Amino acid sequence: MRRALRGHGASKGIALGRVRVRHPQALVVDERRIAAGEVEAEIARLHAAIAQTRDELRALRERLHGALAHEVGEFLDLHAMILDDPELLQGLDELVRIGRYGADYALKLQRDRLAAVFEGMQDDYFRSRREDLDHVVGRIHAALHRRGDDGATGLSGDILVCETIAPQELADLQAQGVVAVVTATGSPLSHSAILARSLHLPLVVGAGDVLAVANDGDALIVDGGSGELLLEPDARDLRDYHRRAARAGREQAQLTRLRRQPTRTVDGVDVRLWANAETRTDVAEAHALGADGVGLYRTEFLFMQRRELPTEEEQFLAYRDLVLGMAGRPVTIRTLDLGADKADHTGLALRSEPNPALGLRGVRLSLRHSALFATQLRAILRAAAYGPVRILVPMVSGREEMLAVAQLIEQVRAGLRADAVQAGDQVELGAMVEVPAAALALPDFVDLVDFVSVGTNDLVQYLLAVDRNHEALADLYTPRHPALLRLLSELFAYARREGIGVTVCGEMAADPDNVPLLLALGLRDLSLHPGSLLEVRRAVRAADFGRLRRRAATLLRVHDRAGIEGWLART
Amino acid sequence: MRRALRGHGASKGIALGRVRVRHPQALVVDERRIAAGEVEAEIARLHAAIAQTRDELRALRERLHGALAHEVGEFLDLHAMILDDPELLQGLDELVRIGRYGADYALKLQRDRLAAVFEGMQDDYFRSRREDLDHVVGRIHAALHRRGDDGATGLSGDILVCETIAPQELADLQAQGVVAVVTATGSPLSHSAILARSLHLPLVVGAGDVLAVANDGDALIVDGGSGELLLEPDARDLRDYHRRAARAGREQAQLTRLRRQPTRTVDGVDVRLWANAETRTDVAEAHALGADGVGLYRTEFLFMQRRELPTEEEQFLAYRDLVLGMAGRPVTIRTLDLGADKADHTGLALRSEPNPALGLRGVRLSLRHSALFATQLRAILRAAAYGPVRILVPMVSGREEMLAVAQLIEQVRAGLRADAVQAGDQVELGAMVEVPAAALALPDFVDLVDFVSVGTNDLVQYLLAVDRNHEALADLYTPRHPALLRLLSELFAYARREGIGVTVCGEMAADPDNVPLLLALGLRDLSLHPGSLLEVRRAVRAADFGRLRRRAATLLRVHDRAGIEGWLART
Repeated sequence: MRRALRGHGASKGIALGRVRVRHPQALVVDERRIAAGEVEAEIARLHAAIAQTRDELRALRERLHGALAHEVGEFLDLHAMILDDPELLQGLDELVRIGRYGADYALKLQRDRLAAVFEGMQDDYFRSRREDLDHVVGRIHAALHRRGDDGATGLSGDILVCETIAPQELADLQAQGVVAVVTATGSPLSHSAILARSLHLPLVVGAGDVLAVANDGDALIVDGGSGELLLEPDARDLRDYHRRAARAGREQAQLTRLRRQPTRTVDGVDVRLWANAETRTDVAEAHALGADGVGLYRTEFLFMQRRELPTEEEQFLAYRDLVLGMAGRPVTIRTLDLGADKADHTGLALRSEPNPALGLRGVRLSLRHSALFATQLRAILRAAAYGPVRILVPMVSGREEMLAVAQLIEQVRAGLRADAVQAGDQVELGAMVEVPAAALALPDFVDLVDFVSVGTNDLVQYLLAVDRNHEALADLYTPRHPALLRLLSELFAYARREGIGVTVCGEMAADPDNVPLLLALGLRDLSLHPGSLLEVRRAVRAADFGRLRRRAATLLRVHDRAGIEGWLART
Repeated sequence: MRRALRGHGASKGIALGRVRVRHPQALVVDERRIAAGEVEAEIARLHAAIAQTRDELRALRERLHGALAHEVGEFLDLHAMILDDPELLQGLDELVRIGRYGADYALKLQRDRLAAVFEGMQDDYFRSRREDLDHVVGRIHAALHRRGDDGATGLSGDILVCETIAPQELADLQAQGVVAVVTATGSPLSHSAILARSLHLPLVVGAGDVLAVANDGDALIVDGGSGELLLEPDARDLRDYHRRAARAGREQAQLTRLRRQPTRTVDGVDVRLWANAETRTDVAEAHALGADGVGLYRTEFLFMQRRELPTEEEQFLAYRDLVLGMAGRPVTIRTLDLGADKADHTGLALRSEPNPALGLRGVRLSLRHSALFATQLRAILRAAAYGPVRILVPMVSGREEMLAVAQLIEQVRAGLRADAVQAGDQVELGAMVEVPAAALALPDFVDLVDFVSVGTNDLVQYLLAVDRNHEALADLYTPRHPALLRLLSELFAYARREGIGVTVCGEMAADPDNVPLLLALGLRDLSLHPGSLLEVRRAVRAADFGRLRRRAATLLRVHDRAGIEGWLART
């Protein structure tokens, strides 16, 4: 029976497919013992499943790219580590060989045993790894039960309908042919939603009762933009779907033609689009799409996938590759931005903090490990001999920190000269504006910086005192707040007067609908992941810069979000 | 041997006393079994110790007042609950009666047993209660071993030297005669430090190696202002101490004479000092010291010491008592400001959040429980029939929230009229400015408020993105930041132009050293706990308002904290 449902659109795009329901998982297993003669075959079956899981993790790891690749990759690395844990493996063999348990039941027993160990740990960090253990065991369990026709193409054309989805599952699902995902809970601001957008995988979240009404094999139309769902669509729905799909296809083709077009408004004002990029794939894509440079290269991934610190040489090579990859266009390297909320095995960041977002992170952490910070700066300066490089410092709150960084850079530069090591001498220095104080205190350290980059994700979080990952507060977390617009307006005007560069590199800049807002406030440099670059270019090319600037005064006088939306509707 | 040591001054005042070292505690107990004939006597001993502990907790609870009384009181209530837990008590009896364990050993075994239960709980909240269990068991253990000459006067004239101190211990220690506390770790920003200041108990924290060199019975001079410690002082040190103690005594006497003096600058400008007060004692003290009103009455305590919600009548009586206690001077009642970081047994707030400071709290929470919020507003409006009342709304971030509150107040007022219930009709409405966006967005909702109150504790936290309870970031957390001063300056000027009241009610206002800063920026209303009122009045009476205002431009041009300190030094 035809049925219309509704959730929150989290990653746009429309899709038509077969429903594949995943109910909240529980390991349901056969508890009977096996015969002595079955033991070796059962162990072989188990080992095969583990080997298959290991391959899957490796394949997944290689397929990852885009903004969240490092965060997700880091989960996968952890899962691979758990999978290789001798305690897990040996215990499993023993349970089958000595206990005569079937592979499934042994897996469950061993999971419960390790979970108890994790739970008993004093350390919150290890205790929270319980969830990762469940993921790994779930993967092995799935591998044990995979039929020949399942596997890589088993979900082709399917729309996954489930309670919730973890970021690390998304790339996997897309590779298996899933065309859209619908979840009963979740927020459009979650990491999963951000990743789905960068994968261009339609996603609807918070579709409450979908699990109660959708059944395996039902036809479903998903609109990831509006959040609309049509279960068992009728002929008219299907006609409508095909018309919209065709239009989306044409739009995609038009977008592709923008690859070689300039990012210029209708009144001839050039806007620079920078890329947020870390992997070779990102950098190559940024270059191919005509990005004006890399506006944000996060360096955390060099530190997060390992227990030992990266050497200067390793870092140098990574940064040099980046510089060479952009073939003469400037690249902006952000210094280490670790914190207690980013899983870090190097032991640099604190293990847990009551409010990690307000904790020891970014430049605060780097300045406390100045030898390590100096090593990073040295590697960056060396890479700068190969092309234009800008250094970007995260979590700056005032002059003191910026001065300490500038002094450290001078020391490192003197060291390089003393060692007669080649280094770039035209390296620009910039500060992230994400701590609200930095926006107000820019005049205090403007003499120390060549540019600033506004990280709207964190800036909005602190300015509104709303955790950006807090699902229950998703309605409060928005860059469309008069306070933010006024702060940005003053910051942009000040930077212009002082002749320093200013870029916005948060998610706000990646949404083409925000382009009129940012241009009206006077911004001309946006940094975003390459996946959104063409859409944002199209929005810039449709905008009239002069007219928007003239309407800025009206924008700055609105009193609430509705006022901002109204202003946008009149553009 | 004379020895000078140094820590961080956390609560000023000087003291001379005998060292009493408390090493990090471990329950060292006798594991021998007892004879059958000793069982009943041992149980009686145990019960006596438990009864004594119960009395101590009750006595402590009654003695508490001041800013942190509710927070600390809430710990004590929890401890009383643990102490009354039948599982704890029955298990103890059984261990002595059946297991033939001595009282001490039974206590340890039962502690370990319950700790394991707590640890195994899924819920972080219960898991963290492990520490409270330890406190309660420690108290019973101490009661078991208290000699006749110990007890209430056992520590008279002593200076407690320990690893760390919990807020709930401080009032107890002071009542037992402890004249100062020195801790090896800790920060001047901790709750313990704030409480010590309100108790006027000298406290030095972070005195690193003090535990290694101080011995029971050593003489020690503590300067809680500078953080200086003198172990085994010589004759000259003692002369110096007595001179300083005498001077402090004279200063205290002078302060006392300020009770009936106006809070007026040397150039004749009147400044209003409001009190942050909740208990009857606070309110009486505020009245006695000539406070101009209550500037901050927190209502959380009505919700935090219990599992069920307070009725309208209970709230009404509490608010009416407050209004009557101030005898015609205005009182400012802040609506419920619960959050996940405040232990809350009513189940209103979320149990845990990744960043509680950026979570579902204050007006956000109240607006989600609008029936409950309406009940509170109704009780406040009814109390307002007895004297001038102002309603203060916490965690406001913009117009939407303020509008929702104003509309709810109108509904409640209509309801009161319909029910022919008497209510105040001249109730002012105000917003806390603690979310940075509220400072920038005040023009958006200025038509909805009669006044604003700046909560600098949270405002600084969000503006600088520094958790105010984070010991490792204590050097970054400061109200003496150019960004804050500029924001306040604009806010004060705007409020003045628009003719709405503006008060500062955070810790910043309670420090007399900050008075020149706040007056220079144009502030004329400060709210602070009564314990600091006279010192702040003295600072106001020493200030020249006109001269400070003329020097404001210089203050707003400094670039860093050192610049602000320098400006202050030149006042």
